[in-house]
Amino acid sequence: MPFENEIIICDVKYFSAEGKVEEGNIFITNDKISRITPPSKIEITTGKNIINGRGKFLTAGFVNAHTHASMTLLRSYADDLALMDWLNNHIWPIEEKIKRRDIYFGAALAAVEMIRGGTTTFMDMYGPCMEEVAKVVDESGLRGVLSRGIVGIFDGEERLQSNVDLFKNFNGAANGRIKIMFGPHAIYTCPPDFLKHIAEVAGGLGAEIHMHMNETLDEINECMKNYGKRPFEVVAETGLLDLGFLAAHCVHLSDNEIEIMKSKKVRVAHNPTSNMKLASGIAPVQKLLDSGITVAIGTDGASSNNNLDMLEEIRLATFLAKIQTMSPLTIPADVALKMGTVEGAKAVGLEKVGQIAQGYKADLTLWDMSGVEWQPTYNPTSLLVYSANSSSADTVIVDGKILMQGRKLKTLDEEKIIYEFNACANRLTGK
Amino acid sequence: MPFENEIIICDVKYFSAEGKVEEGNIFITNDKISRITPPSKIEITTGKNIINGRGKFLTAGFVNAHTHASMTLLRSYADDLALMDWLNNHIWPIEEKIKRRDIYFGAALAAVEMIRGGTTTFMDMYGPCMEEVAKVVDESGLRGVLSRGIVGIFDGEERLQSNVDLFKNFNGAANGRIKIMFGPHAIYTCPPDFLKHIAEVAGGLGAEIHMHMNETLDEINECMKNYGKRPFEVVAETGLLDLGFLAAHCVHLSDNEIEIMKSKKVRVAHNPTSNMKLASGIAPVQKLLDSGITVAIGTDGASSNNNLDMLEEIRLATFLAKIQTMSPLTIPADVALKMGTVEGAKAVGLEKVGQIAQGYKADLTLWDMSGVEWQPTYNPTSLLVYSANSSSADTVIVDGKILMQGRKLKTLDEEKIIYEFNACANRLTGK
Repeated sequence: MPFENEIIICDVKYFSAEGKVEEGNIFITNDKISRITPPSKIEITTGKNIINGRGKFLTAGFVNAHTHASMTLLRSYADDLALMDWLNNHIWPIEEKIKRRDIYFGAALAAVEMIRGGTTTFMDMYGPCMEEVAKVVDESGLRGVLSRGIVGIFDGEERLQSNVDLFKNFNGAANGRIKIMFGPHAIYTCPPDFLKHIAEVAGGLGAEIHMHMNETLDEINECMKNYGKRPFEVVAETGLLDLGFLAAHCVHLSDNEIEIMKSKKVRVAHNPTSNMKLASGIAPVQKLLDSGITVAIGTDGASSNNNLDMLEEIRLATFLAKIQTMSPLTIPADVALKMGTVEGAKAVGLEKVGQIAQGYKADLTLWDMSGVEWQPTYNPTSLLVYSANSSSADTVIVDGKILMQGRKLKTLDEEKIIYEFNACANRLTGK
Repeated sequence: MPFENEIIICDVKYFSAEGKVEEGNIFITNDKISRITPPSKIEITTGKNIINGRGKFLTAGFVNAHTHASMTLLRSYADDLALMDWLNNHIWPIEEKIKRRDIYFGAALAAVEMIRGGTTTFMDMYGPCMEEVAKVVDESGLRGVLSRGIVGIFDGEERLQSNVDLFKNFNGAANGRIKIMFGPHAIYTCPPDFLKHIAEVAGGLGAEIHMHMNETLDEINECMKNYGKRPFEVVAETGLLDLGFLAAHCVHLSDNEIEIMKSKKVRVAHNPTSNMKLASGIAPVQKLLDSGITVAIGTDGASSNNNLDMLEEIRLATFLAKIQTMSPLTIPADVALKMGTVEGAKAVGLEKVGQIAQGYKADLTLWDMSGVEWQPTYNPTSLLVYSANSSSADTVIVDGKILMQGRKLKTLDEEKIIYEFNACANRLTGK
C-alpha cells in the first residue's frame, strides 16, 4: 500500500458478527475494518474521511452467490415461459449472437445495479469473454468470483481452455478482488467423463468449482435415465466435489445427496426468485441448514429474476422457508441477513469477508433509515429484511474504497453505461 | 365542480384496459380520464397542466384490497412468531393502549407510504376511531374504503354501532373518495348469531362486508369443532355473503366453499406476504380465478408484512401461484398487474376505477423507467412486475388530483407525520 486510507463511520447502528444490532464507530484502514469503538469514545481527527452514521444502519455488503451478470441484456425479453422453452427457444438463440462488447456492457450495467442494491461481491458464471467481466470488476471496485460456464456438449475443450486462461490471467487480480473458479454448467450439458476431465484440470490449478445442480425435476429424471443415479451421485464420482464446490439451486435433493453434500462440504447458492418464477420448486433450505451445510443466496441472472436485487432475494428466502416448513419461526431476519452476507462469502470461498468485525475486509453497505418504511425504527435488522427496499442503500464500500455515497456512484459512469448497454441489447434482439 | 381541472400526460407508454402496452396522450378532466389520443396527435394547449410521459410508464394506481393502515405503529415490533402468539402476546396487548391520536398518525404514515408506492385506493379494517382514518383519506387525497373491525366477543354491540356511525357520517364523503363497509373481524371472534345481527344492520343500510376468512388451519379446525361446518358454510347462513362480500386471505378452502363463494359472488383479497411470513399457507389463487372469482391483492397490516408495498405484493402473487401450480405460465405479469388494479377496484366494490380508459376515475401512477433495473426497456409490464421496486413511482394522481410528483408529496407533510408518528409509537411500546 502506498499510503494509508482511513474512513470512519461514526455513531452508527450496525449488524454485528453475532447477528445483533450494536452501536459504535467503525474504523476502516486501507482494505480492512481496523477497529470498532463504542459510540461515546469517538475522537474526531481532521484529515480523515468521516461518514456520519446517525440514522443509518450498517451491514456487511451482500454477496450474490450465483448470477450471470451479462444476462441483464435479456431482462424481460422472455417471461412467463417454461424453463426449457425459455432456454432453447428464447435465451440461447440470442446468446449465440453475443459479442465481447455485449458481455462488457451487460456486466457493467449489472455492476451499477448491484452497487445500487448494496451488493459488494458477486459470483458469476457466463459464456465467452469472461475477461470483460473481470475488467468490469476491476473498474467498478466490486469483488467478483468468476467462472466460465463450460457447456461440455458444445466445444467443451475450448470452453474449458478459456476457463484455464481466465484463471491464469485473473485469479487474485485487482488487489485480490478477483477470484476465478471453474464453471461446469450442469449435469445435462456436461457428460461425466468431461466433468472428470474438468476436475483434473481445475484440481491441478487449485481452483474451486461452481455448477448448477438439481434445479428441476426434468434434470433429475434425465440424469436418472442416462446414468441410473441422481446428479450429486454422478458428480461425486468425478472428483469435482473434492475441490471446494458451490452448487447453485439444489431444489430437488434426495437424503443420500444431502449426505454426500454434507460429507464433501458442498456449499449451496439458493435462488428463491428464479426457482419460483421458473416454477422449478422449493429448495429444502432449512433441512440443508440443519445438516450444517452452508447456504448462501443468489439472484440468478436478470433474465429469470428479473433483477439483481439481493435484499428482495434475502426476504424471499425467509418467506419461502417459512411457508415450506409451515412455521413463521423458520429463518428469522438475522439468519436470512447472514445468509446474504457472511454465509455468502463462505459459499464463494472468501475468507474474512461478510461481517463487521476487526480484521475483516471493509465490504460494507450503509442503509438510510429515514424513509417511512423504516418507521418506527424498533429493529433495524427486521426493517431491512422485511420492510425496506434496495433504494435505501446509501453508501457502498468494497475493500475500503467508496463505490457509492449518497446514492451517487463513484467508480462507474452510469449514464454512459445505460446508453451503450441499450445499444448492445437492441442490436442483439433487433428491437 | 367549481372549475375544470385538466391534466395531460403526453407521449406516455401505458398499461391499457386490454392489458397491453400502448402509447398515447392521456387527458384528465376533473376526476376522470376524459380521452386518450394517439401520440402523434397532441395539440399543446397553454394553461393546462402538462406532464411529460416520455421514458415513463403509466398504470392505474394500485388498489390495496386488505390492510390495517394504523398498524404501521407496530411495524417490526414483533416478528418471526406464530400467528396466535403474535396476536395474543404482542399485538393485542399494545393495541389495548392505542388512542385516537395514534390511529390518526398511524394511518397518516401509512398514507405517505402508500402514495410513495403507487397505491391510490386502500381497503382498511381497524379498531376504534376509524373516523381518524377517514380524516387521513380526506386530507391525503387517497381513495379509501373503510370498515370498523368488529370483534364480537369484546363489546360487540358497541363496535357494531361505531361501524354504523362511520357509515352514516362518512359513506360517500370526500367527494365520493370514502366508502364505508362493515368489518366483522373473523369467524373466531364473531359467533354466528352476532354475524346474523351484523348482516341485518349492514343490509338495512345497503352496506357491503369485509371480513377475514379461512386464514389459518387452526381457524378452520376451531370452526369445525364449534359449528361442525367450515367458515364459509357458517357465514353463508348468516346472510352476510348476500350483501357484497370481500373475504381477506382465503388460504384454506374446500371445494364446497369455493362453490359457495362462486354462487355468492364473493370477492377475495389475497395477501401473499402475510400468508408466507406468518406461515398461514398458500391460497389457491389460480383455482379461484378458474372459478371466475374476483381475486385482488392486499398487503395486510405493516406488522405482518412489514410494509405496504403493493408492487412487492403483486410480484409475490405471481411467484407464489407459479410455485404452487409448478407452472411458470401461471399468472403472467399482465394478469398480476390487473389483480393489483382493476380487480382490486372490483373487489372493494368501486366502479369505473382501476384501468386506463375513457370515463374511468383518474387514479393513476406514473413510473420512472430511467433506472438500471428497467434496462433494456423491452416490456414495461414485465419490468414493473418483475424488476422495478416502488421507488420508481414518480407521480401519483387520485380523482384527478396530483398527490405526488417527482417523488415530492403534494398533500401531506411527510416530515411532521414521521415525527408525530414516532412519538405515538414510542409511547405505545415504551421504547
